[in-house]
Amino acid sequence: MTNRVYNFSAGPSTLPEHVIQTVKEELLDYKGIGASIIEISHRLPIFEEILDSAKSLFSELTNLPKNYKILFMHGGAQMQFSAVPLNLMSHNFRKGSYFLTGRWGILAEKEAKRYGKTEIVLDGKEYEYLEIPEFDNDSLDSGSCYAHLTTNNTLFGTRWNSFPDTGKVPLVADATSDILSREIDYSNFGVVYAGFQKNLGIPGTAIVIIREDLIGNALPETPKLLDYGLYVKENSLPNTINVFAIYVMNLVIKWIKKQGGVSEMEKLAMKKSKLLYDVLDNSNFYKILAHPKNRSTMNVTFNINENILLEKFLNEAENEGFFALKGHSLVGGIRASIYNAMPLEGVEELSIFMKYFEKKYG
Amino acid sequence: MTNRVYNFSAGPSTLPEHVIQTVKEELLDYKGIGASIIEISHRLPIFEEILDSAKSLFSELTNLPKNYKILFMHGGAQMQFSAVPLNLMSHNFRKGSYFLTGRWGILAEKEAKRYGKTEIVLDGKEYEYLEIPEFDNDSLDSGSCYAHLTTNNTLFGTRWNSFPDTGKVPLVADATSDILSREIDYSNFGVVYAGFQKNLGIPGTAIVIIREDLIGNALPETPKLLDYGLYVKENSLPNTINVFAIYVMNLVIKWIKKQGGVSEMEKLAMKKSKLLYDVLDNSNFYKILAHPKNRSTMNVTFNINENILLEKFLNEAENEGFFALKGHSLVGGIRASIYNAMPLEGVEELSIFMKYFEKKYG
Repeated sequence: MTNRVYNFSAGPSTLPEHVIQTVKEELLDYKGIGASIIEISHRLPIFEEILDSAKSLFSELTNLPKNYKILFMHGGAQMQFSAVPLNLMSHNFRKGSYFLTGRWGILAEKEAKRYGKTEIVLDGKEYEYLEIPEFDNDSLDSGSCYAHLTTNNTLFGTRWNSFPDTGKVPLVADATSDILSREIDYSNFGVVYAGFQKNLGIPGTAIVIIREDLIGNALPETPKLLDYGLYVKENSLPNTINVFAIYVMNLVIKWIKKQGGVSEMEKLAMKKSKLLYDVLDNSNFYKILAHPKNRSTMNVTFNINENILLEKFLNEAENEGFFALKGHSLVGGIRASIYNAMPLEGVEELSIFMKYFEKKYG
Repeated sequence: MTNRVYNFSAGPSTLPEHVIQTVKEELLDYKGIGASIIEISHRLPIFEEILDSAKSLFSELTNLPKNYKILFMHGGAQMQFSAVPLNLMSHNFRKGSYFLTGRWGILAEKEAKRYGKTEIVLDGKEYEYLEIPEFDNDSLDSGSCYAHLTTNNTLFGTRWNSFPDTGKVPLVADATSDILSREIDYSNFGVVYAGFQKNLGIPGTAIVIIREDLIGNALPETPKLLDYGLYVKENSLPNTINVFAIYVMNLVIKWIKKQGGVSEMEKLAMKKSKLLYDVLDNSNFYKILAHPKNRSTMNVTFNINENILLEKFLNEAENEGFFALKGHSLVGGIRASIYNAMPLEGVEELSIFMKYFEKKYG
């Protein structure tokens, strides 16, 4: 893999090289059965082992309390924008509360309106979503069915450092872009969900971690494959699961365990992001987009004042083997997505390139 | 791949060996970009090329009329059990008609009831679904929003040889288990859909082929990622698509083209299934389950009268490298699923084994 680039894509994103190597080695003949992992039934015991391993290892890595279930569902995080209100809104009081801290929260709230009332308990709009405002408890209806937030905002490069206390209202978190990169106490959440394609492998599937008492009350219009209760009952196999995605996810979390677990991932994320923020803080050439108190450890967003230099930066970076650094079209600038699988050396080399580029053109 | 078995699994199922080899060869570094296909964004031009290729090649292979759109959606065929009524039922007259010829049709009708009225226009129950009864036009409400059938019934080994004329009522077909194995005239259908995991690659994604005039009238409770209109508008990218599934599907249909296209696949399916049916027809030992007029060319189902011999058959077959021949638990017996990717030699060898087994124990 001599020509492997450093892939800073926001998602789907870089995977541990070891994982891709393993997939390659095992692809033609999985564990000697004479068939590929991409050809076998989801009902085979040899796949059930993978599914069980994925669930028990995830529980272990997150110290998941016993009263939580792990589901694997079709469609990524945006399918959960529908599934959350469909499963959590009460039949006779359909209301969900939303923290709007970026694009995904906004889309989640918009989707929930299809099924009931929503209230916005916090909106970062006035800060152009580059800062998360303080949460005022009084803005939350204590009778709301749930309160939904996005733990980390990929586009803007912000994150919640600590999570709001919503009292008896179950807190629901879209953790797609920082799951398993920081230690969190799952007992503070009613539901945590995440699309696979950043820290858990490949796109098309989501993990849903749900407190048991919230299961089994889906609204009557819930499509069967969006019903949490059915997935619990059928052990995530109400129909054919994405076998390959679960297989890759299991390899990814095994790799995380080998690195020392989530606490080590968190230390690494702090170290990697600090490397970049230090370069940026010590520069008049680059401008960090996110407010200091909400800086993400997964997506570092910044800009260069002159447009011509921005394009030059992206082109030269790509020529040097730094891939997919262009910011999201709604935000502009540069975004370095440094998920768990991005090696420290990739970030070190990028920081050197950034300093070199500033010296040359700044 | 010396120890490769013949994999008769009903789905996920065997893939062309050439496809798996290609995946392996390209896995570490897709087309020299320095990253794996399982690490790249669905927004990259290099993936859009794959997506465009998959669509145009599918159109070419099926002679798809110009007024049809091709969508790729999350969740396999069962997600379409919900999507079909959600997209096709009229807002003020919610009614769908169902042909029940096996398990999947039954489940589809059950799901549709969530959103409106259903009528059953044909039911194979009295034949234990081993035969498809004649269709009486009068049983169909000509004002129904659509009429849904399953082209091939995996569990029972039956299929529609020719499709019923439903007049002005759009015909909707779940073609999961025989898509691209037979030439069909898409202009006779309003919607044809299929999960990927039999003739199109790996599970978790479905193809939906839809006549343009049926697009854009989803019911208000339709989750955004089940809305055909949104998928048309966003070119199947309303959110992160299962990149790897589209990539594999594109390789599979390229392989089909190289074999001579759908007409060659159909000839091969006839030849392969005839090989097995001939053995069975000439035997008093085995018993074919499906009625002669509805025999599937994809799933050949049969039984041995004595239970002890059935187990012996399955065990000895597995020892000889014939994998996953056990019938579905609801049907019992033996099922040889011989989708497009099953080589002729696999079926020839199975037919020899069947004759050998009959001679030994019959």
